[in-house]
Amino acid sequence: MSEKIKVVQYGMGPVGNKITRYLLERDHLVLVGAVDIDPAKVGKDVAELAGLPAINVPVSNNPEQLFRDVRPDVVVLTTTSDLEKIQPQIEQILSHGINIVTTCEELAYPWKTNPDIAAAIDQAAKSNNATVLSTGVNPGFMMDYLPVTLSAVCRNLQTVRVDRIQNAGERRLPFQQKVGVGITTDEFYQRVADKTLRHVGLTESIHMIADMLGWELSKTEDIVEPVIAENPVKTPHFDIPAGRALGVNQVGRGYDNNGKEIITLTFIAALGVPESLERIVFDGDPGIEMKIPGGVNGDVATCAINVNAIPTVKNAGPGLKTMVDIAAISCF
Amino acid sequence: MSEKIKVVQYGMGPVGNKITRYLLERDHLVLVGAVDIDPAKVGKDVAELAGLPAINVPVSNNPEQLFRDVRPDVVVLTTTSDLEKIQPQIEQILSHGINIVTTCEELAYPWKTNPDIAAAIDQAAKSNNATVLSTGVNPGFMMDYLPVTLSAVCRNLQTVRVDRIQNAGERRLPFQQKVGVGITTDEFYQRVADKTLRHVGLTESIHMIADMLGWELSKTEDIVEPVIAENPVKTPHFDIPAGRALGVNQVGRGYDNNGKEIITLTFIAALGVPESLERIVFDGDPGIEMKIPGGVNGDVATCAINVNAIPTVKNAGPGLKTMVDIAAISCF
Repeated sequence: MSEKIKVVQYGMGPVGNKITRYLLERDHLVLVGAVDIDPAKVGKDVAELAGLPAINVPVSNNPEQLFRDVRPDVVVLTTTSDLEKIQPQIEQILSHGINIVTTCEELAYPWKTNPDIAAAIDQAAKSNNATVLSTGVNPGFMMDYLPVTLSAVCRNLQTVRVDRIQNAGERRLPFQQKVGVGITTDEFYQRVADKTLRHVGLTESIHMIADMLGWELSKTEDIVEPVIAENPVKTPHFDIPAGRALGVNQVGRGYDNNGKEIITLTFIAALGVPESLERIVFDGDPGIEMKIPGGVNGDVATCAINVNAIPTVKNAGPGLKTMVDIAAISCF
Repeated sequence: MSEKIKVVQYGMGPVGNKITRYLLERDHLVLVGAVDIDPAKVGKDVAELAGLPAINVPVSNNPEQLFRDVRPDVVVLTTTSDLEKIQPQIEQILSHGINIVTTCEELAYPWKTNPDIAAAIDQAAKSNNATVLSTGVNPGFMMDYLPVTLSAVCRNLQTVRVDRIQNAGERRLPFQQKVGVGITTDEFYQRVADKTLRHVGLTESIHMIADMLGWELSKTEDIVEPVIAENPVKTPHFDIPAGRALGVNQVGRGYDNNGKEIITLTFIAALGVPESLERIVFDGDPGIEMKIPGGVNGDVATCAINVNAIPTVKNAGPGLKTMVDIAAISCF
């Protein structure tokens, strides 16, 4: 890795700004451009937007021109979680033969959930000799790639259970608002119906695990419920009466052909959780219980793994890849 | 994976027998041959040797003839931990264009410790369009691949510490004897000098971690000490006076160019250990402590990961690969 890898950051929201900061810390990467359509950001220096001293790299709203001018090796694409919305952006980037790392959750393992779009992106990547990878803390790592990888030391497995439990009280106010702290159960279910309150990707993670363990599934579920305050709760930000939401409890389940639940993914982010925790539990030979007490901060982890993926993606073969298709990603 | 992968088991010691049992459990694999030079095993049925009903696959002492007759896709090679001794066996197998999965610890990450042999094997693999991978519980997983993989969610890392702590009292007598339970400290250090008492691979694991984190090392250490009985210990197998060994405490260390210890791998297998445990500790952003209480049985894990590696190795590109070069291995 003697020559620096040229990177464009595409999407200057909070995640894009954090990734920008991480990109600028790496000796083997050079940030050569940035893209956003927001008129308030276009023309601004990408590092200044991220809260750092200027580096003389302005945000562009013309990716076509930018790609021709700076010829990046890799684009980090952080515009949306929605696969249909991101597809044209991906195809435009690929048409320049540029590799893509993206946080788009629905692309993390789309082969069962969106096979047509997955095939189209795979074809576009192959015909332009470029690689596309979606990754993040989850989907992409904690509830799919890590249990799959850990299963390598097992002779056999009967069930997989993964828990991500986050004490929302340890996180910033926008995170607490995002997971529904303080709202009524009516509002909560309205937001679930609007798809504005959910952790995207449990179904994708279930399919990755099942495929990698050779398990056929008859059914999957993704159920979002509020964690409800049994008693009033008072915090620096909230004064919550009993009966309102303290956060989200989302459970993804995969069932085998006999209707037995063999994969269970639980995502809890709420006030009043005693301790943040990542946990993987295998019923098998050997049985394994893996724990990360205190959990892993999802914002840091998602931005870090997208930056860490850049060298691996640059050297992977062409096509739409998922985390299990490529060589190991490390904090390089 | 509609067509079954044809496998030969090469080396019918305790590990080879256990791998045979695991191979026979997998629907997508078919055991088509076995090799050993021990006259007591040659001609015997491979499944019977492994304690199962016969499958009409006799152990051969003529691998050349066997490979021509059965044309396996993959050989599982479990003859020795010693890289110099295994090299001619590997080159013979490769000359038939056959992929190799092996438990040979010194081949797990040989690029710094044995670069000449590594380059020769890599060349032989490439010129025969075949893949070679060494893996096991360690080196190959717990103290190198898993921390490397976990680092993917980190923005930065300052130090890596990995502990494998095993209560030898939970393991069978041969394991207890192997780690020096009950012997004098003189005997212990004699066995260390003879290299009959050691966990092979800590140095290889240190180099894999350092390379994958972009860390330059000025020095590595691999120090083997006895765990000494402070008081007499009585078990079903042993009556141990104070002052004798209860097992092994082996520490591998990697130092940076300022002489700071940045990688610490501790392997303890002894009587009187309060609890078996796998632990990975990162000082970094985020700091992470990952634990597997009760630990992972090393014999099961090593045999399982070699069997689980077979499909991945069959589909990897040609050359000498390490765990970090290939797609994910899972319990398929």
